[in-house]
Amino acid sequence: MNRQLLLESIRDNLVRQEETILFALIERAQFRVNSTIYRPGALGELLGGESLVGYLLRETETIHARMRRYTSPDEHPFYTGLPEPILPALRFDENPLRPNTVNINADIRRNYETAVVPAICEDGDDGQYGSSSVADVSCLQAISRRVHFGKFVAESKFRARPELFAPLIRAADEQGLMERITDTVVERAVLDRVREKARTYGQEFLSQRTAPTLDPEVARMIYADHIIPMNKRVQVAYLLARDPDA
Amino acid sequence: MNRQLLLESIRDNLVRQEETILFALIERAQFRVNSTIYRPGALGELLGGESLVGYLLRETETIHARMRRYTSPDEHPFYTGLPEPILPALRFDENPLRPNTVNINADIRRNYETAVVPAICEDGDDGQYGSSSVADVSCLQAISRRVHFGKFVAESKFRARPELFAPLIRAADEQGLMERITDTVVERAVLDRVREKARTYGQEFLSQRTAPTLDPEVARMIYADHIIPMNKRVQVAYLLARDPDA
Repeated sequence: MNRQLLLESIRDNLVRQEETILFALIERAQFRVNSTIYRPGALGELLGGESLVGYLLRETETIHARMRRYTSPDEHPFYTGLPEPILPALRFDENPLRPNTVNINADIRRNYETAVVPAICEDGDDGQYGSSSVADVSCLQAISRRVHFGKFVAESKFRARPELFAPLIRAADEQGLMERITDTVVERAVLDRVREKARTYGQEFLSQRTAPTLDPEVARMIYADHIIPMNKRVQVAYLLARDPDA
Repeated sequence: MNRQLLLESIRDNLVRQEETILFALIERAQFRVNSTIYRPGALGELLGGESLVGYLLRETETIHARMRRYTSPDEHPFYTGLPEPILPALRFDENPLRPNTVNINADIRRNYETAVVPAICEDGDDGQYGSSSVADVSCLQAISRRVHFGKFVAESKFRARPELFAPLIRAADEQGLMERITDTVVERAVLDRVREKARTYGQEFLSQRTAPTLDPEVARMIYADHIIPMNKRVQVAYLLARDPDA
């Protein structure tokens, strides 16, 4: 089987992505909520009606698209209408996924701005709009990658037991698919590990340090209430759209 | 005294920047050296003769300049000719530094590409050019901020003891200034703490994890051989250019 579809290899990758997500959240947690940066048009007309975070995200995706980021099956842009790559194709890994258009970045962004940021940041405004927006883009990209990795998980599970999945797909049984892909033992292990990592990474090294960091319980909540459920939504959406006979 | 010049407040800020630098280095250390991304022109003519890292760095700085990053006294661009800000001025902290043009980013970038990357990454090429370049830009920006923070350190030290610094500045006594700003006790504490943090952040949480991480001794070396010496160079250059009577 394609190495990218080995469940063990996928799990290693997901574990490594936890660091990326937690580091990005810890960076963002230094600053206050700064709600101005999420309000379209709040920072003048030169941002084209975007919020500051939206502006930075779109501009970043424009550069990354030119660098061929979004031809990789594990990357999904938040914006459409991005430019064509100007880099030659570099990697030749076969794409192990079935053709699909699943992309729930709009929901990821809404959840992030309305639930995650207020959970990790102190209320209020510290004027650190640029630094906060840069951290937001890192968080959004890291969470999007983790959530859409569900496609690899789903394809791997399908190929391991097609006889279980094909009938559920044919019946468009969303609920049945959700039950079939759910592994509560693995989920609990992920949540415990994320909490433990956040505790380790967020520890203060000097007593005089006053910079806020990331509460381990909040880190766990972000996985429990947002990242894992959205990842499972991607798995189900991917399977529902998959040809059960291919 | 301006809060930005209180030595304790500066030290807290420098301590917090250690996390940003270490997290960025750990992200980069996932990938191989990928020397192709540092070679100007290696990836086609559409990058305008730049290396991939140079292209991404310049494009990123172009966006950040529009967001007014480089009007902040603690931020220094690697590129010149960047566009004017399109954001209104947001922060009104007084700039506590004397006017100066000290910017050693060219050296920071050369050191980073030729010494830091080979120290933290495994040799070879894994094709992860985009991810490596994105991590490089984060590393370069974080290191540049830390190194140029020497300006605040130097201004703070000058104001605390102008009678010691003014004669050295008038005599253009570079060696004397270097000795005067050096505090080996503080330096040793920084190096010990950085090694300890790298050990904590780089620890592996699952035995099957095979992704390379950051060697604590390498993290210490990067501070000892690069970040601290470059920070001290900035302090001396800033003081040499400073009006000793102002």
